[in-house]
Amino acid sequence: MLVGSIEVGGTKFVCAVGNENYQVKDQIQIPTTTPSETLQKTAEYFAQFEIEAIGIASFGPIEIRKNSPKYGYITKTPKAGWENTNFIGYLKKYLNVPMFFTTDVNGSAYGEYVMSLLSNEKIDSLVYYTIGTGVGGGAIVDGNLLGSTGHPEMGHVLLKRHPDDLDFAGVCPFHNDCLEGLVSGPTFEARLNRAGKDVPLSEPVWDIMSYYVAQAAIQATLILRPNKIVFGGGVTSEEFLRKVRRDFAKLLNGYVEVPQLDKYITMPEIKNNGSATVGDFALAIDMLKR
Amino acid sequence: MLVGSIEVGGTKFVCAVGNENYQVKDQIQIPTTTPSETLQKTAEYFAQFEIEAIGIASFGPIEIRKNSPKYGYITKTPKAGWENTNFIGYLKKYLNVPMFFTTDVNGSAYGEYVMSLLSNEKIDSLVYYTIGTGVGGGAIVDGNLLGSTGHPEMGHVLLKRHPDDLDFAGVCPFHNDCLEGLVSGPTFEARLNRAGKDVPLSEPVWDIMSYYVAQAAIQATLILRPNKIVFGGGVTSEEFLRKVRRDFAKLLNGYVEVPQLDKYITMPEIKNNGSATVGDFALAIDMLKR
Repeated sequence: MLVGSIEVGGTKFVCAVGNENYQVKDQIQIPTTTPSETLQKTAEYFAQFEIEAIGIASFGPIEIRKNSPKYGYITKTPKAGWENTNFIGYLKKYLNVPMFFTTDVNGSAYGEYVMSLLSNEKIDSLVYYTIGTGVGGGAIVDGNLLGSTGHPEMGHVLLKRHPDDLDFAGVCPFHNDCLEGLVSGPTFEARLNRAGKDVPLSEPVWDIMSYYVAQAAIQATLILRPNKIVFGGGVTSEEFLRKVRRDFAKLLNGYVEVPQLDKYITMPEIKNNGSATVGDFALAIDMLKR
Repeated sequence: MLVGSIEVGGTKFVCAVGNENYQVKDQIQIPTTTPSETLQKTAEYFAQFEIEAIGIASFGPIEIRKNSPKYGYITKTPKAGWENTNFIGYLKKYLNVPMFFTTDVNGSAYGEYVMSLLSNEKIDSLVYYTIGTGVGGGAIVDGNLLGSTGHPEMGHVLLKRHPDDLDFAGVCPFHNDCLEGLVSGPTFEARLNRAGKDVPLSEPVWDIMSYYVAQAAIQATLILRPNKIVFGGGVTSEEFLRKVRRDFAKLLNGYVEVPQLDKYITMPEIKNNGSATVGDFALAIDMLKR
């Protein structure tokens, strides 16, 4: 059995073909140019294989409600040329297989969830945050993706400001100092005029970052009570998560019981940004089973 | 068919017997004294009826994980004498019927969810916050209560502080200025030295309150994407929720689509604090069906 995965990113599409064990059998990258050119190349790629379904994890916001006339669209992205793109409609013209359409973070959340089950962890819920160019979050609850009126946008919540960071306005064009506005990659340039990769973990800005990211984990904990919270994306590292766990414990102050912190707040189990590919394969396979 | 409901509060137990249409057939109040006295009276009350199951909505924190040795306990409440009370164990000695044990806000959330379905609203998720002596929140997702590692404690999240309220330390003994520490009933005494019922909605403190409560609604929206957010408890009123909706719209800034605000952020549909009783009846009935 073969299924497809499309990770829809702002700079490239990662297209992969995998089997029922979530193993990648073939993979290419297609630069993200115009919708018609990129989607055309994507369709041509998958037409070479006998795939039975495709899972798609896209940057958002996207329309995932099946009863909406805009189902399958990328809706109001700032990505030039991609606003209001009928993503699924375009692909369906060329590929006659079932498609599962969700966000990049939902795809990653599902991949990490499936991999946790394969590792014999007894879990039924998981939250996945990415901290990179933007900040997003997706969640699995009782084995299903979360969200009745659309997909989560966990990156745009407001937070208690760090006392040493009160003068920073934040970089989110919609909300200024929401989570994304305070901890996404571009905040390093905005705060320090340096790229994040050039700022060692010993600098104080990372303690400001971890204070905010810990609050995201607190919100996920107190609202969802999940089994696990995974942090991916270019800003995240194991060293950084040690700071996050420290601040999480301090802020939660023992109020509710949580799993052992280094198992609860973790890096992705699937390496090399592969979480969404596994998630897409699994979402495609699970869709066929239903 | 008859089922029971116990609303376990810090000052009284509300015990009710209802039928399969969630109609109350009998009801009493028992003052909350010691665990043994109060639970004894509760058991004697229900022993008079041919009930088939009981739904119990309790103040918390409580242990709801079936696989925990402490399942059915009220755990570490500040309520004197009630810490570590084997609530379900005690009742089971006298009443040989299935019992569903959850938090007060989960019971209310389920009651409001069931009532929304009966009103032909097409919903599958709902969040219920109570703002009173304390602040709590419960949620229904895909028709089920939310929480893998325990019940939600949505009242203890941190928030962006209102610029006119930066000097207020907050009243939560665990977190100082978490949501509960900033908007629960006792904050009126702490901020103004007056009871909340004596502070008219025209006073500026209510705008500070609504700024925080709107952030709770933002968190619930962006993390859960629910169909509806209900606010109950003594501090809430329709007039106050108008302020909350105003601040919610301003803070969300159109980032995600939400239902019409006066249907999305609402007072309980079930009047006179009856949400938990209906929820308990429904949880008891649904447990028997499974």
